[in-house]
Amino acid sequence: MDFEAFFEQQLDGVREEGRYRVFTDIKRHRGSFPQATRFVGEDTQAVTVWCSNDYLGMGQHPDVIDAMHAALDECGAGAGGTRNISGTNHHHVLLEQELADLHGKESALLFTSGYVSNWAGLGTLASKIPGCVVFSDALNHASMIEGIRHSRAPYKIWQHNDPEDLNRKLSNFGPEVPKLVAFESVYSMDGDIAPIAEILDVCEKHGAMSYIDEVHAVGLYGPRGGGIAEREGLMGRITVIEGTLGKAFGVVGGYIAASADLVDFVRTFASGFIFSTALPPAVAAGACASIKHLKTSNAERERQKERVAQVRARLDAMGIPHLPNPSHIIPVMVGDAHKCKRISDWLMDNHGIYVQPINYPTVPVGTERLRLTPSPVHDDGDIDRLITALSEIWSQCELARMATAA
Amino acid sequence: MDFEAFFEQQLDGVREEGRYRVFTDIKRHRGSFPQATRFVGEDTQAVTVWCSNDYLGMGQHPDVIDAMHAALDECGAGAGGTRNISGTNHHHVLLEQELADLHGKESALLFTSGYVSNWAGLGTLASKIPGCVVFSDALNHASMIEGIRHSRAPYKIWQHNDPEDLNRKLSNFGPEVPKLVAFESVYSMDGDIAPIAEILDVCEKHGAMSYIDEVHAVGLYGPRGGGIAEREGLMGRITVIEGTLGKAFGVVGGYIAASADLVDFVRTFASGFIFSTALPPAVAAGACASIKHLKTSNAERERQKERVAQVRARLDAMGIPHLPNPSHIIPVMVGDAHKCKRISDWLMDNHGIYVQPINYPTVPVGTERLRLTPSPVHDDGDIDRLITALSEIWSQCELARMATAA
Ligand SMILES: Cc1ncc(COP(=O)(O)O)c(C=O)c1O
Ligand SMILES: Cc1ncc(COP(=O)(O)O)c(C=O)c1O
Repeated sequence: MDFEAFFEQQLDGVREEGRYRVFTDIKRHRGSFPQATRFVGEDTQAVTVWCSNDYLGMGQHPDVIDAMHAALDECGAGAGGTRNISGTNHHHVLLEQELADLHGKESALLFTSGYVSNWAGLGTLASKIPGCVVFSDALNHASMIEGIRHSRAPYKIWQHNDPEDLNRKLSNFGPEVPKLVAFESVYSMDGDIAPIAEILDVCEKHGAMSYIDEVHAVGLYGPRGGGIAEREGLMGRITVIEGTLGKAFGVVGGYIAASADLVDFVRTFASGFIFSTALPPAVAAGACASIKHLKTSNAERERQKERVAQVRARLDAMGIPHLPNPSHIIPVMVGDAHKCKRISDWLMDNHGIYVQPINYPTVPVGTERLRLTPSPVHDDGDIDRLITALSEIWSQCELARMATAA
Repeated sequence: MDFEAFFEQQLDGVREEGRYRVFTDIKRHRGSFPQATRFVGEDTQAVTVWCSNDYLGMGQHPDVIDAMHAALDECGAGAGGTRNISGTNHHHVLLEQELADLHGKESALLFTSGYVSNWAGLGTLASKIPGCVVFSDALNHASMIEGIRHSRAPYKIWQHNDPEDLNRKLSNFGPEVPKLVAFESVYSMDGDIAPIAEILDVCEKHGAMSYIDEVHAVGLYGPRGGGIAEREGLMGRITVIEGTLGKAFGVVGGYIAASADLVDFVRTFASGFIFSTALPPAVAAGACASIKHLKTSNAERERQKERVAQVRARLDAMGIPHLPNPSHIIPVMVGDAHKCKRISDWLMDNHGIYVQPINYPTVPVGTERLRLTPSPVHDDGDIDRLITALSEIWSQCELARMATAA
């Protein structure tokens, strides 16, 4: 087989569908984020980032940066091993305690990323619990889907955010069958939020374990940043809470929080945890500082809410269509891969506004969008420039406006 | 089902087999590594680490630390997004260029870890090339095995380091079948090295792609630290070279290097690459500095070789059995999980010497061992203390000595 020809042909196909990805090469500026420098060949351009998942700007928070500098000087660059073979650093231990406390659980376990925590966490539970059946929300993230697939456990997909459908699906299995229900709190592309209490009612009725991905909620919701489940007083009823350190907490890494025995079980059997170098001590120290800060400071969350509301109101005033939802994510719907890319390019080239087009496979074909994530570090001028530019391109391209248009 | 009881019972089983893992909680000291502080409850203990995979001590190299401090101040803590959605930092781009250059390939792609690079790299190639059959060395690392399993592609396991067996296995498939051969250069637990040239002869004869894991070789072998394949002038004949930034390079992360189209193909289709927050810019900058340094400096490699030879000679003189191999890894064989753990505990408690016992599932039952990794940062005193302590415990426990014993 001519492998090179095959790769080329596959890539051509992707290009034709308008979903070939050219990564935008930037340097974020610590201290003045969302401002960044974009690199294009030999040139550079000043840009404002509107699509980051550093939702609260914690990636430039002095507590985080200071903790990382200190740990770097104290412990060096890397962990130097897997967790079992000399790679457990005291900063990992402290971070795991901090995470367990954040979610009111006995224990927590760090992974190299949120992706790996879902893949390894769900994969291990579903494959090692004999006869386990997994019930997965239809819109679960790729990392959960891959973990479930990898486990080889039988699985049923229930309709998105639909506890009644979950109940129906669970009812097909007797009480003797071990059940694992996997879902998210905030769905990152539509920004909708799961009816967690109702889902837990159903889980409890059927004796099922509940596994929630709070990746787009930790740091952002709840009085201490414990996520939607904290806000709604539901953490104690959830079996496993999974989160990331790479979005609102501003660093990198992932984790699960649960009972001591469950965490110990995953720690003992998860290949993706055991056989991989641990995160650098400085990463753990930075994440720990970020969590600690957001446990007591509401300022970032409050200002983010206000920024999000302002952007929404301004979009409404212009009649620019965006998905209504109760979260911090503003999906401006375009519905076509080529068009989405063209708008994004135009915003970048003409206004230095960076909003990545979101195309398949991240969202279904036909729902292509610009996903805006206003944060506490976007000032009024940033918002003015964004709204003006969007309005301009909406007029130029004769894109549909909503009935509420000003 | 009573999940908690199940977890507890499984963990009890692991405990009875003597392979329950208690992580050793340490702080490595930048500047004086391999010295570290161990945390035990409220107490601390000064220890010397003898089992790190920071093989060359690059985790404390000033170039690496300085680059990380600088990038932290420049770009902040995290990347702030997946590679496609605002997470590509200029430091990632520079690092990928550095890696492609290191291996003489057109392109390279960064992953959050070596584990993920294998899992996603092999998984994507094997699942997306229609009809692909994978040929996997019997002792391949968990991350490769999981990637192959995840792909659902049919696979054949060939005898460890045996090109003839590989040839036999490949011969069962016609020229029209796409074939992918996966193996490592240095096998980390036995320290043996693959006959790469012979394996490539067989691959080429059958038109198979070759995929090599050089995780325990990059930075350590070859005039520029390109690995065993560089040392033997074979990089150009290998389809994919995979490596880690977390061992000899001293930081964290993983990568593949290959043709531009192959890398672009994996970049476009690998779920574990696409849907995960990118590594922090500071991590990329640190890894880049480490690679750059080891491209021109042989001092670390030379001193490591001398240290390894000295430890081997001293073990021989004492008749302490270790697996002979042509690499930098010294497996001191014990052959029993409980005994291995007891020796390790004794070394720690009585001499502050930290050598993690290596038990199942990392090595097969009956081959439990202490795995020593002498590095340029171990001085003569460290070696004296290690040898004296090992000799003492070998006498105390009446452990078998080799015929060559002094
Ligand atoms: C819902 C969800 N879960 C998990 C992840 C993976 O987390 P991480 O970026 O830390 O790998 C992401 C995105 O990256 C996500 O959107
Ligand atoms: C042969 C081999 N490949 C891959 C890996 C994974 O690399 P990383 O530690 O960067 O995840 C390891 C060990 O950790 C390994 O021993």
